[in-house]
Amino acid sequence: MTDADSLNAFVPGPRCHVAGAANGALAGLTFAVKDLIDVAGVPTGGGNPDWESSHPVPMQHAWIVEQLMQAGASVIGKTATDEVSLGILGENPFTGTPLNPAAPELVPGGSSSGSASAVAAGVCDFALGTDTGGSVRVPASFCGLFGIRPTHGRVDFSGVLAQAPSSDTVGWFARDAETFARVCEAVFGAATPTSLPDRLIVTSDTFAFADPEVAAALEPMVNRLASVIGDRRDRILAPQGLSVWQAAQRCLQQSEAWQTFQPWIDAISPRFAFHVARGLTIGSLITDAERTRAALMREEARGRLRSLLPPGTILCLPTTPFPAPRRGLSISELAFPRERISSLTCLGGLTGSPQVNLPGAQVGGAPVGLSIVGARGADLELAAVARAFAGAA
Amino acid sequence: MTDADSLNAFVPGPRCHVAGAANGALAGLTFAVKDLIDVAGVPTGGGNPDWESSHPVPMQHAWIVEQLMQAGASVIGKTATDEVSLGILGENPFTGTPLNPAAPELVPGGSSSGSASAVAAGVCDFALGTDTGGSVRVPASFCGLFGIRPTHGRVDFSGVLAQAPSSDTVGWFARDAETFARVCEAVFGAATPTSLPDRLIVTSDTFAFADPEVAAALEPMVNRLASVIGDRRDRILAPQGLSVWQAAQRCLQQSEAWQTFQPWIDAISPRFAFHVARGLTIGSLITDAERTRAALMREEARGRLRSLLPPGTILCLPTTPFPAPRRGLSISELAFPRERISSLTCLGGLTGSPQVNLPGAQVGGAPVGLSIVGARGADLELAAVARAFAGAA
Repeated sequence: MTDADSLNAFVPGPRCHVAGAANGALAGLTFAVKDLIDVAGVPTGGGNPDWESSHPVPMQHAWIVEQLMQAGASVIGKTATDEVSLGILGENPFTGTPLNPAAPELVPGGSSSGSASAVAAGVCDFALGTDTGGSVRVPASFCGLFGIRPTHGRVDFSGVLAQAPSSDTVGWFARDAETFARVCEAVFGAATPTSLPDRLIVTSDTFAFADPEVAAALEPMVNRLASVIGDRRDRILAPQGLSVWQAAQRCLQQSEAWQTFQPWIDAISPRFAFHVARGLTIGSLITDAERTRAALMREEARGRLRSLLPPGTILCLPTTPFPAPRRGLSISELAFPRERISSLTCLGGLTGSPQVNLPGAQVGGAPVGLSIVGARGADLELAAVARAFAGAA
Repeated sequence: MTDADSLNAFVPGPRCHVAGAANGALAGLTFAVKDLIDVAGVPTGGGNPDWESSHPVPMQHAWIVEQLMQAGASVIGKTATDEVSLGILGENPFTGTPLNPAAPELVPGGSSSGSASAVAAGVCDFALGTDTGGSVRVPASFCGLFGIRPTHGRVDFSGVLAQAPSSDTVGWFARDAETFARVCEAVFGAATPTSLPDRLIVTSDTFAFADPEVAAALEPMVNRLASVIGDRRDRILAPQGLSVWQAAQRCLQQSEAWQTFQPWIDAISPRFAFHVARGLTIGSLITDAERTRAALMREEARGRLRSLLPPGTILCLPTTPFPAPRRGLSISELAFPRERISSLTCLGGLTGSPQVNLPGAQVGGAPVGLSIVGARGADLELAAVARAFAGAA
């Protein structure tokens, strides 16, 4: 697969090719940019025709794009996304649904759907996405890629279309651990540490929550990871319940998304796929009392992560409870799977901890990933683990 | 104004011209058909691209189209509508918003927007619409046309896209009372009665609810109507409150609309303008208990109309509380006006009574209409009143 257009990964319209600096740590590498992230002189479409037509063409690159170009990487195009990042499956009736190159009959995952698709198809070396509720981690799991949701607030978000600011992050995908780690180093401006964490927490409630086939398929990866790290302990991640954490994250995220998009929606009543507009409407109905309960649960989740992750410790969990669903399922068929996925991804937005998807397992021929999570700020430690894990194969 | 396309009243794509019978009461007349109503061999778009693409092209004319063609009238095209009839202002981001020829800077009203626009511009003699919550009456008022919402259940609805079956009707527009009455006779298969009603109820709460300028502008029409009818009495229409009736109609209509469209929405997650998807989502959240309360209020409203309208009696009210709003207002700017309009139109869906808009008044240069309402089945009596009213000018 080499024709990017045949993938539907790239947004329609003129493709942008913007060369990076001649020298630098990423010289010679190419990357694609999720169409929520500004590339100067190119419209930021946001996966929605009414977003694109109601916003000016950006005059500046987003911080992350500028940083990567200064490191020598070149932009080869903007990629498809769920509408204004609202989705984790990657289906978009306006731009089309990108191919999942690892499993063509399945969705690619979203909302960073086109970026995952383009990297998985090999048309660029890496690609940028965003992750609020799982939008890098889910497509990384479904497409079989390395992908990171960095520590919340650590990577400058300027020039990126916001959804829920208390959860929004910029992330990236790569096919191999070495490229992945090099991009991490370029973004964070430091080398990966030479010493690895020395304790692995295997979160037993998350593995129990995943499909048994997924837990079984991930077991060899967990064992390899444990051998890389050394010390393995089994612990519960969410004493209050993964579903309770999920409800809190959903409440906060939907409520913030409504606050973010309300002025624009009010002004022009943009078109959306029904399920996207429905989520925004539900967000508009959330009360202050509900937000307060959810914010308290977020504090509990943050405390739990701090107690689980002292220095030198990481944890692991299945990135998604199952591989990608089939393309073209109905809203009601996807409703419960969507809730189940976010029951495993909710810890990112709730706690702000960095998380990296490691590819390597398959169920029924479709990829599914293992996630490693570190304490806030431990992004490069996770990149070092990804490198060591890949090297131990 | 003679170029229909410049109006945006007709839907994009090939125009249909289907000749009616050579002889008949309507021979030589041309009509346009709201794009919710089937014309054999022409897609029924429903004002939404995903409706059109997910439904087969109809093989038969809707009953009403067939009836009018057998009477000699010829179809000249399909006209724009709010998405799947959900709207009363006529603004549609997919097909564009038809011109209000009487007031180009104002909305045409909807959902039968293109039919009203085409008739008002003079490009056809009459046009078909549908009216569930006001979709003929509102554009008739805003564009200055005769328009009827017939007795609920009296005109065969087959071949018409349903919204809320307990309120749905097919209606029509004309510029002059004579054409209007001839179409009524062709549809109902009988002549208008020779004797007119002999008592007029002026519903004081509805005139008080309208803008004072509208009540004042309609006063000469009310006086002329009273002189045509003879006996005038002032009465309250809704003892429980127009706003209470409106809430009941909104509850029943939104709830039924959700039931109607849910299977389609579930299957394909169609695209909608946000405010349309929001209304559907609100409809999905209505409880059985709320529906029961609303259905009880509907019974009260029906009883009230029966007591107000013994044989030989009609009532009148302002069709809309104000002339058409400006085009392009925001969702929040339109929210309250929308509720106010439906506080005057709700009696149609609640009681099933026939209602005719009489044009003739203006406020600030924009049309606003006077409605006459009869008991169930008194459609031709209202057409006779419209004729006599126009003749008394």
